[in-house]
Amino acid sequence: MGVQALEVIEELSSILEVEVLTANENANLLIQQAKKFQPNAVVIENESAYLKVKEALQTEDIKVYAGQKAICDIMEMSTIDMVLSTIVGIAGLRPIFHAIQAGKTIALANKETLVVAGDIITEMAQQKGVNIFPVDSEHSAIFQALTGEFHNPIEKIVITASGGPFRGKNIEFLEKVTKEEALQHPNWNMGNKITIDSATLMNKGLEVIEAKWLFNIPIEQIEVIIHPQSIIHSLVQFEDGSIKAQLGLPDMKLPIQYALTYPQRYVNHFPRFSFKDYPLFSFEEPDHQTFPCLKLAYEASYQGGNKPCVLNAANEVAVATFLKDKIKFTDIYRWIEDALATIPYSEPKTIDEYLEVDRETRLFLDSKM
Amino acid sequence: MGVQALEVIEELSSILEVEVLTANENANLLIQQAKKFQPNAVVIENESAYLKVKEALQTEDIKVYAGQKAICDIMEMSTIDMVLSTIVGIAGLRPIFHAIQAGKTIALANKETLVVAGDIITEMAQQKGVNIFPVDSEHSAIFQALTGEFHNPIEKIVITASGGPFRGKNIEFLEKVTKEEALQHPNWNMGNKITIDSATLMNKGLEVIEAKWLFNIPIEQIEVIIHPQSIIHSLVQFEDGSIKAQLGLPDMKLPIQYALTYPQRYVNHFPRFSFKDYPLFSFEEPDHQTFPCLKLAYEASYQGGNKPCVLNAANEVAVATFLKDKIKFTDIYRWIEDALATIPYSEPKTIDEYLEVDRETRLFLDSKM
Repeated sequence: MGVQALEVIEELSSILEVEVLTANENANLLIQQAKKFQPNAVVIENESAYLKVKEALQTEDIKVYAGQKAICDIMEMSTIDMVLSTIVGIAGLRPIFHAIQAGKTIALANKETLVVAGDIITEMAQQKGVNIFPVDSEHSAIFQALTGEFHNPIEKIVITASGGPFRGKNIEFLEKVTKEEALQHPNWNMGNKITIDSATLMNKGLEVIEAKWLFNIPIEQIEVIIHPQSIIHSLVQFEDGSIKAQLGLPDMKLPIQYALTYPQRYVNHFPRFSFKDYPLFSFEEPDHQTFPCLKLAYEASYQGGNKPCVLNAANEVAVATFLKDKIKFTDIYRWIEDALATIPYSEPKTIDEYLEVDRETRLFLDSKM
Repeated sequence: MGVQALEVIEELSSILEVEVLTANENANLLIQQAKKFQPNAVVIENESAYLKVKEALQTEDIKVYAGQKAICDIMEMSTIDMVLSTIVGIAGLRPIFHAIQAGKTIALANKETLVVAGDIITEMAQQKGVNIFPVDSEHSAIFQALTGEFHNPIEKIVITASGGPFRGKNIEFLEKVTKEEALQHPNWNMGNKITIDSATLMNKGLEVIEAKWLFNIPIEQIEVIIHPQSIIHSLVQFEDGSIKAQLGLPDMKLPIQYALTYPQRYVNHFPRFSFKDYPLFSFEEPDHQTFPCLKLAYEASYQGGNKPCVLNAANEVAVATFLKDKIKFTDIYRWIEDALATIPYSEPKTIDEYLEVDRETRLFLDSKM
């Protein structure tokens, strides 16, 4: 996602500028991007890579920092207008919280932040008058549908889902699928974690919870529909029954660009959708029997408190374990269900308390191995 | 359409009020509606029905007028905020022109007005600072998609068409169709003239020309796609490639309501769309061989001047003649083509000059009988 964002910024270099770049541990890519985009500063989270980055950029006019605290601290820089968060998983929570505290506009691709701590994050954003613009294609579609309509009550939101690589299969089939099969997404080219989330439909569950916080709407008014062509990216139905939708090819660059340039749109050279290539759109109800993760997400969100945090942590651990070939695909669901049943309900009041729930969940699942 | 508009107004009686009602010649319906909605005044265009209406409403506090001039004059009433024009055909042109001159907001269901004299009408609207809100479901969809985006350039507009009752047929089939068959529209329940226009695809041609004027966009950037389910009512593609669409059941009440309450939406009890009832949306290119009227409309609009007026007049005459069983369905196209080829190009500068072109075209076609 970060790479695609830089492609967007390159295309719109007359209006967008990179002030800071951060990376987890891919020092080589960070160095290469820094040389090309000449940010004011870079931060590498993995401190052991600090010297390598520092050395590679010593002839450039670029400050180099390392560590998670540096990522949080740098959000204070007055020259930053907007923070684009593409970090995957709960790792994005603390930096985004700091960026909001610092009053920066957020372009949010990290869905786990709102899933885990939507209450604290949205309250802080409101306090600070900070806008959170979604980057996920579904939430961008909803946001685009709502543009010019924020004063009109929403009757319901319909989030579309491709259905993933195992659409139409049954649970017996899923018991035997391999990591390689699960990583074959039909429409989107994404990271491993989100691709597995798409195969289990947990990705849609996380999106439903994210939408609830982003658009301030009860989860009862959010539906999921399977749309295998992934052309309609989501829909909003208003109080008068009128439905607005955003459509396009499955390409993350468009929602990234919209978040970066809202409310303006700028011409670009991304490929265009044509009905000639898509003469049929189909729609079907999600198969909750075969893909129980979506229901788990709804239930966790209904229960509230620490439950969505437990759901997310258990999912992160289970997916990582599946990607290491240590559990079956269908164990992902079982692990999450197990964690939700075991970790008692609580009501975290701070980011630290949420992170403690996350740790607790991971410890519990470690003990299962 | 007028009846449906009154149903909308009845549902929203807390915010909408009928000030004036007009009718062509259906005195009984006008009397009944006047008694129910208690307007300040009514106008019956057909002067021979004046006494009947006057007498029927003598115990009510309702002024009664008659004649086309009275319809135009009453637009000046200071208590009128908005004029909803549901008159079919060029008959709507003069009253709408007067309403715009009087500075009234227009809710426009009459597409012929802009087809015939889009240049004069839009210029006058701009001069007077008058908004023209579309009521046609396709143009309402485009307008809804543009809400909040009027500052963003349009790359293209895609107008959807059901394809009418003869979609998939060939020209040999069309040579033999009857009036009764042509009046069987698959999705929409409309008046006879517009239903025949839907069967020939001329309705879409008129809509393309109307969209050009309403949204100030070259006709080259307006496309038509056949979408037999009539759920996506039209689409707008912006400069960044993003597409926004408005969807809903085929029901005129929603676009009527939106035009009357824009930019607010109000809750109503109209039936809601569900993907369960529409699991497939399909799309196909229009068949220009079998339905040549659409191309004629594009060509007339390219040529400009009096040509769209000739197109519209010839279509009105040909459809009326077909509805009298005096010509074949496929003669509609031939009559229009003939008129366009015969009436020389000119550039009318006033409403009267356009009405003169209309008369000239009708005289030419009368001479063919």
